[in-house]
Amino acid sequence: MSRPQSPEPALNVQGASSIGLGDEDAADGTQHSHRMLSFSDALLSIIATVMILPVTHTDISPEQEFDKSIQKLLATRIAVYLMTFLIVTVAWAAHTRLFQVVGKIDDTLALLNLACMMTITFLPFTFSLMVTFPDVPLGIFLFCMCVIAIGAVQALIMGYAFHFPHLLNPQIQRSAHRALYKRHILRIIFHGPALCFVAAGFSLFFYPALVTCLSDVELEELPHVLDTRFFSDRRFAHAPSLLVTLPDAQQSYLLMATVIFLPYVSKAASWCRGRLVGPREPPAHSLEFFTFDLHGPLSKERVEAFSDGVYAIVATLLILDICEDNVPDPKDVREKFSGSLVAALSESGPHFLAYFGSFATVGLLWFAHHSLFLHVRKATQPMGLLNTLSLAFVGGLPLAYQQTSAFARQPHDELERVRVSCAIIFFASIFQFAIWTTALLQEGETLQPSARFGGQEHAFMFAKLALYPCASLLAFASTCILTRFSTAIFHLMQIAVPFAFLLLRLLVRLALAILRALPRLALRPAPTRPAPGGPRDDTCSPLLPAPC
Amino acid sequence: MSRPQSPEPALNVQGASSIGLGDEDAADGTQHSHRMLSFSDALLSIIATVMILPVTHTDISPEQEFDKSIQKLLATRIAVYLMTFLIVTVAWAAHTRLFQVVGKIDDTLALLNLACMMTITFLPFTFSLMVTFPDVPLGIFLFCMCVIAIGAVQALIMGYAFHFPHLLNPQIQRSAHRALYKRHILRIIFHGPALCFVAAGFSLFFYPALVTCLSDVELEELPHVLDTRFFSDRRFAHAPSLLVTLPDAQQSYLLMATVIFLPYVSKAASWCRGRLVGPREPPAHSLEFFTFDLHGPLSKERVEAFSDGVYAIVATLLILDICEDNVPDPKDVREKFSGSLVAALSESGPHFLAYFGSFATVGLLWFAHHSLFLHVRKATQPMGLLNTLSLAFVGGLPLAYQQTSAFARQPHDELERVRVSCAIIFFASIFQFAIWTTALLQEGETLQPSARFGGQEHAFMFAKLALYPCASLLAFASTCILTRFSTAIFHLMQIAVPFAFLLLRLLVRLALAILRALPRLALRPAPTRPAPGGPRDDTCSPLLPAPC
Repeated sequence: MSRPQSPEPALNVQGASSIGLGDEDAADGTQHSHRMLSFSDALLSIIATVMILPVTHTDISPEQEFDKSIQKLLATRIAVYLMTFLIVTVAWAAHTRLFQVVGKIDDTLALLNLACMMTITFLPFTFSLMVTFPDVPLGIFLFCMCVIAIGAVQALIMGYAFHFPHLLNPQIQRSAHRALYKRHILRIIFHGPALCFVAAGFSLFFYPALVTCLSDVELEELPHVLDTRFFSDRRFAHAPSLLVTLPDAQQSYLLMATVIFLPYVSKAASWCRGRLVGPREPPAHSLEFFTFDLHGPLSKERVEAFSDGVYAIVATLLILDICEDNVPDPKDVREKFSGSLVAALSESGPHFLAYFGSFATVGLLWFAHHSLFLHVRKATQPMGLLNTLSLAFVGGLPLAYQQTSAFARQPHDELERVRVSCAIIFFASIFQFAIWTTALLQEGETLQPSARFGGQEHAFMFAKLALYPCASLLAFASTCILTRFSTAIFHLMQIAVPFAFLLLRLLVRLALAILRALPRLALRPAPTRPAPGGPRDDTCSPLLPAPC
Repeated sequence: MSRPQSPEPALNVQGASSIGLGDEDAADGTQHSHRMLSFSDALLSIIATVMILPVTHTDISPEQEFDKSIQKLLATRIAVYLMTFLIVTVAWAAHTRLFQVVGKIDDTLALLNLACMMTITFLPFTFSLMVTFPDVPLGIFLFCMCVIAIGAVQALIMGYAFHFPHLLNPQIQRSAHRALYKRHILRIIFHGPALCFVAAGFSLFFYPALVTCLSDVELEELPHVLDTRFFSDRRFAHAPSLLVTLPDAQQSYLLMATVIFLPYVSKAASWCRGRLVGPREPPAHSLEFFTFDLHGPLSKERVEAFSDGVYAIVATLLILDICEDNVPDPKDVREKFSGSLVAALSESGPHFLAYFGSFATVGLLWFAHHSLFLHVRKATQPMGLLNTLSLAFVGGLPLAYQQTSAFARQPHDELERVRVSCAIIFFASIFQFAIWTTALLQEGETLQPSARFGGQEHAFMFAKLALYPCASLLAFASTCILTRFSTAIFHLMQIAVPFAFLLLRLLVRLALAILRALPRLALRPAPTRPAPGGPRDDTCSPLLPAPC
């Protein structure tokens, strides 16, 4: 927070790179990194969301109740998904910081980046292995090896870039303290791998000691936090107890928690120290002007690209399933439906309805995100974290789809399923709303003038972001009262919200038209269209949200 | 070709939009379309590649030979994949042209675009339905309805944009003949849907007549062209004959061929007319300065974004499968491998080897594409078509992965599988090479100076693009001689090529170092590093490729 301006140059360099390649770059074999970064963002966002597939494809046969083994499997898979998502996001953030230092690329760097991507693709697999076999040290060992490999490739990239300084960010390139920067950056890069190295050593040599030593002390910490949302559901009410039966998994969870929350912990520690000892002196070589900082804001462009990737893959994971499973087999049609294709298709009708609803939900959440980030100038660390949490729930939407499309088969679970879907949508959208409120806390730095308090787009933005939380909460509440119509309520919500979005704009247009028709109310002439909040209040009544 | 400069302004507007949103846009509720277009490109590229999944997931049990029904199923699915890919690419191209006309968006347009995306997601499903049930008119009817729906949404977008002219491309916005443009564009948009409307009518009312009327005349046309590559394989040698047993499918194939090749046919027709009658007078209102032209070049930025999406989804389709299928089940490990995780993992060892190889192939093909498009100024229509064909084969790479990873189970098919993989890689890379040669034919327009004949990057680019065709051809040839070692040869190729890419750059660096060490050979001073082709010839001998 102490260096609000520093990332701007790096960001602008990246933004400008999309304009096109000046041929002068070709002369020394360097290239702008814009396209490579977009490709990396796309890959990483897909890798982050991939572990939702084992969750959605968990087969629960109709006759079987949610017995303990299924609950355990599902809970483990959901935990794996959430953790993998957070881990890959951490890897993505590290990649972002890396390429804030490296301004341009050449062929070798592009190839090294591909190698880096490849090692990252193994994170979900090794993590999943680690959780599935908590009592086998090999799982944790492989995961640690993977993290170490990523660190090694990143260090290689950094070493290469510092060896050919014309590839570096112009700011660092011109700096007199380049060697100092190099040491500083390499130290940050080796942070995670070093930790994993220790953990791998532990897992191999001190494993028996560790198991006895770590008793149930930290047990309830992480899985609890992550899963209480899911377990609040009635049918899952006794699920937390089963986590207690998994004491061996704590080791891997603890390791993960350390890797993920290390930046935040170190930030909190430095903040506390600052409070106790007084603000630290800036170091002699003015390292604080430097953008490669674990606590500095992320490049807004890359946050957008990563989010786009997640939304795109989530929207299309649904169509992947539809295309693969819902084209009826000609043999089945002949035998079961006596040749009638219409009958065969109408059997998977609920699937299509659920697909429509889910695609609309993902699309509109993307739309809200897009509208929000249009007005964001800079994505600070807390905003990035909230965005990640929002995206993690968006990644859970295929689960919501699977829940709703399974209605036809298992009517007795209907209510629970609708509620889980509502909860997922609610959390995905409420975290978006939280990004907005967090941005408002520092609105001077983070928002465009029009979206700030009193700005002309403020009320409208509030309405856009509040629509989904309100709708899903309303749907959830109605299912509590009208339990029999829960499915109908849910589908009604999914169909009504897109129209609400369209009408939102129309209502604002109407308000603007009224404003223009009453010229004595207009404070400035028509072309700039001032909207002093007043006439728009009828579209969205609580104008000033309490900063939570 | 007659208007090379016209698309540049549109392209630059899009490029500039990534810089950031000036707050002046927020004032009238409009937004730059850059992020929405990237998101659409990501969605469309995933939708295009989705139909490879039914191909790769075709279950062929080990004891079962390739009997006729499996062959038929596989051939149909591959044809469906290729056709869907081409159809979605046509839809994508139409979308690109649409947003060359619409320069800025507002909320309503963003929502309409989401609706457009949603209708496009149904193209693969309806097309697949149409091919699976060639004798049921409902399939073709649903497909046509889907195309008509897409056309309707696009027309809605266009109508909306012309109703609020500040959303249009500045060029059209300023034009005096806006109404004329509108008519012209709407006519182009309604081309495909009108055709489909006729086809839908036919399918419902004149179906019996059509079946008798269309005899075997056009039968061998399209499926033949698409599948000969695949059928050149020994085991598939009698496969074309089975297409003759599918006379009912011809109708759908014909329809598709018309939709896909209509632009090319109409272009060829106008070219012929131009030759016969003499060049046409430019119409009075100078419509030819206008970028919304079916034959004009595509926005290079969007070609890149779409290609990136395809490469990204193909690379990660592999990891999707790995993560879902290759985490061993704890119960299996206990029972089958007596608790040894290492034994369980080593059983799926070939999968990981194949994954490494495939990811490297996809990554390096992306790298070659990236290097090529760095030097491309403008993507002309033939280059776009070749790019689509290359991408269609890249989308087939998961099939190559599945072929190689299935070795462990079916050793008797090994040779065929290696050859199919080699063929897929060869075609994916040779079409990339063809993009390059096509660009060279009009190098003044399409390439940066450094990549043209005699330019310093020319030889290097040639080497990069020729590496994969040569390697895959070599591997294919070696499997013919050393049939017993075919798998080893294939894996050797997959491991050797990345190093070849790295060494390519190192060799050029070496050549440059020699050049600098012999200052009498250097034509210009060191900082600009001229490389007049000569010393680089040893890295890649045939400097001048014959334009094919």
